Amino acid sequence: MTHFSRRSFIAASALAAGAMALPSAGRAAAPLARAQGPGAYRYKLGQFELTALYDGTWFLPIDGKFVRNASGGAVNAALAKAFLPPNILPISFTALLVNTGKQLVLIDTGSAGQLADTAGFMNANLAAGGVKAGDIDTILISHFHPDHIDGLKTKDGDKVFPNAQIFVPEPEWTFWMDDGNQSRASGSVLGYFRNARRIFADIAKEAQRFKPGAELVPGIVSLPAYGHTPGHTAFAIHSGNQSLLAMSDTVRNPELFARHPDWQPIFDMDGALSVKTRRRMLDRAAADRMLVEAYHFPFPACGHMVKTATGYELVPSMWQPL
Amino acid sequence: MTHFSRRSFIAASALAAGAMALPSAGRAAAPLARAQGPGAYRYKLGQFELTALYDGTWFLPIDGKFVRNASGGAVNAALAKAFLPPNILPISFTALLVNTGKQLVLIDTGSAGQLADTAGFMNANLAAGGVKAGDIDTILISHFHPDHIDGLKTKDGDKVFPNAQIFVPEPEWTFWMDDGNQSRASGSVLGYFRNARRIFADIAKEAQRFKPGAELVPGIVSLPAYGHTPGHTAFAIHSGNQSLLAMSDTVRNPELFARHPDWQPIFDMDGALSVKTRRRMLDRAAADRMLVEAYHFPFPACGHMVKTATGYELVPSMWQPL
Repeated sequence: MTHFSRRSFIAASALAAGAMALPSAGRAAAPLARAQGPGAYRYKLGQFELTALYDGTWFLPIDGKFVRNASGGAVNAALAKAFLPPNILPISFTALLVNTGKQLVLIDTGSAGQLADTAGFMNANLAAGGVKAGDIDTILISHFHPDHIDGLKTKDGDKVFPNAQIFVPEPEWTFWMDDGNQSRASGSVLGYFRNARRIFADIAKEAQRFKPGAELVPGIVSLPAYGHTPGHTAFAIHSGNQSLLAMSDTVRNPELFARHPDWQPIFDMDGALSVKTRRRMLDRAAADRMLVEAYHFPFPACGHMVKTATGYELVPSMWQPL
Repeated sequence: MTHFSRRSFIAASALAAGAMALPSAGRAAAPLARAQGPGAYRYKLGQFELTALYDGTWFLPIDGKFVRNASGGAVNAALAKAFLPPNILPISFTALLVNTGKQLVLIDTGSAGQLADTAGFMNANLAAGGVKAGDIDTILISHFHPDHIDGLKTKDGDKVFPNAQIFVPEPEWTFWMDDGNQSRASGSVLGYFRNARRIFADIAKEAQRFKPGAELVPGIVSLPAYGHTPGHTAFAIHSGNQSLLAMSDTVRNPELFARHPDWQPIFDMDGALSVKTRRRMLDRAAADRMLVEAYHFPFPACGHMVKTATGYELVPSMWQPL
């Protein structure tokens, strides 16, 4: 065969195939799948088996006010550096399942499709990972924003994880369930108050309040990480000689808030305290070369942090067999 | 609740739960899954639907001679920078399925478990993506190394893709199927000659040879990318106003060979020509901000390349809904 145009190539191929028609010629058009593949990524941590569970991505239109202390131009430049289009923030949701060998622990619960059409796949991905919702016996909640707690209940108010003991940060509960605080709230924050009541009011007795700092399950220690919300909590997971720092929302999109740790997204309720918490945690993660995980990191949402001259870079974990 | 040790916390929890035992107390140990989740990631390119199919990872023990022109210490430093252990190269395999809406095209075929226990999952992931092997009507082969062609046949010599028309680069065929060339080979390269015959000898009439540069399927153009092997081929995929550059083995592990494009792995048969091809392709990808894909990039093996002062960085695509 010599070099040829597409037309002559097809002719030449047909010739080479002799009387036989090319298989593609007589075949019906292949149907498009029109759906993403499963998002359940498993990795070992000592004796524990961890599963990153992709819930979806919320494509949030943003304007020049999304980061309180950075211009819309600077934010769009950071998005462009990550090969992302301007004025839209892709907010990825990934929950973390920890099988300690004795307990099946879920950290945060996904959005259950109550936030965006492009999210709410966590339970399907849990099933793809071979786990039933009824198998989960412990749920740890980092904070009360809807994308972290909505998965606890269906839109109709039914429990999604009927056998799970739910642990919530005490300062988070105290803040969001306080009627005085709610009476002073407005806009989206008022929505968060109402949503927290929708989820928790009738299971108040079952939800175990914990003080951040406590070990909640053997090997899983809660860590105060206040700022994003008043009781926002991270988790350190230890097994054998390995550790992982589950940062929750301490660092959101890494292309914005790891690279620019001082930037304050409007979702950080106390911007200055959030920056302090973020820098402290990222410094620790980078200095100790810790494996980290964060709810809004791109799936599978785990990797390592490297300190640079101006901020931090996420080095995503390489997808591997278990 | 106040701050407490693990012991006092458990006691306090039990107290808070009243007479009710904590659910975790009476529950049987959760069984570990001991298997990775599915690896099938779908993305759109114009009207085409692409699926990255993870085949697995070959953990290759390497010594100071793996990169011809870099010391073992320099290679280990590059691995450490990527948070990978020394002296082991994790070589990931990801094949690419392209549904053009008319044809179902597979680019390279995985290892079919004939190379390492930790690889050979491509067909399971094809099934996870909702596609049967018999549905594939076109296979494009980049080159004749075993990890790219072994998936065409089972160990017993049966065809895995019974309905597929197979396209192979003419210079690759000419080189590997030449008895004179084989007679001069030794070691692992001799193994590659024998393996190419095992795969292709009895389907020689069916395998369509093409000259790199030809458009093989409407929207998929082959590109000569010689050096890694004599007929090594890349592919440009175009649909609507979007393009993707499937680089095959032009760039292998990005943490080594994108960051250090002049490094010559022993798998590059013509090291100097490979470097020239690699730099030319990476320059084009970076300058045009092209979406790229490569067989040995970490799954899902797609992203963009950025030129740095010393080499190139992969910016992995963010996992998203379709």
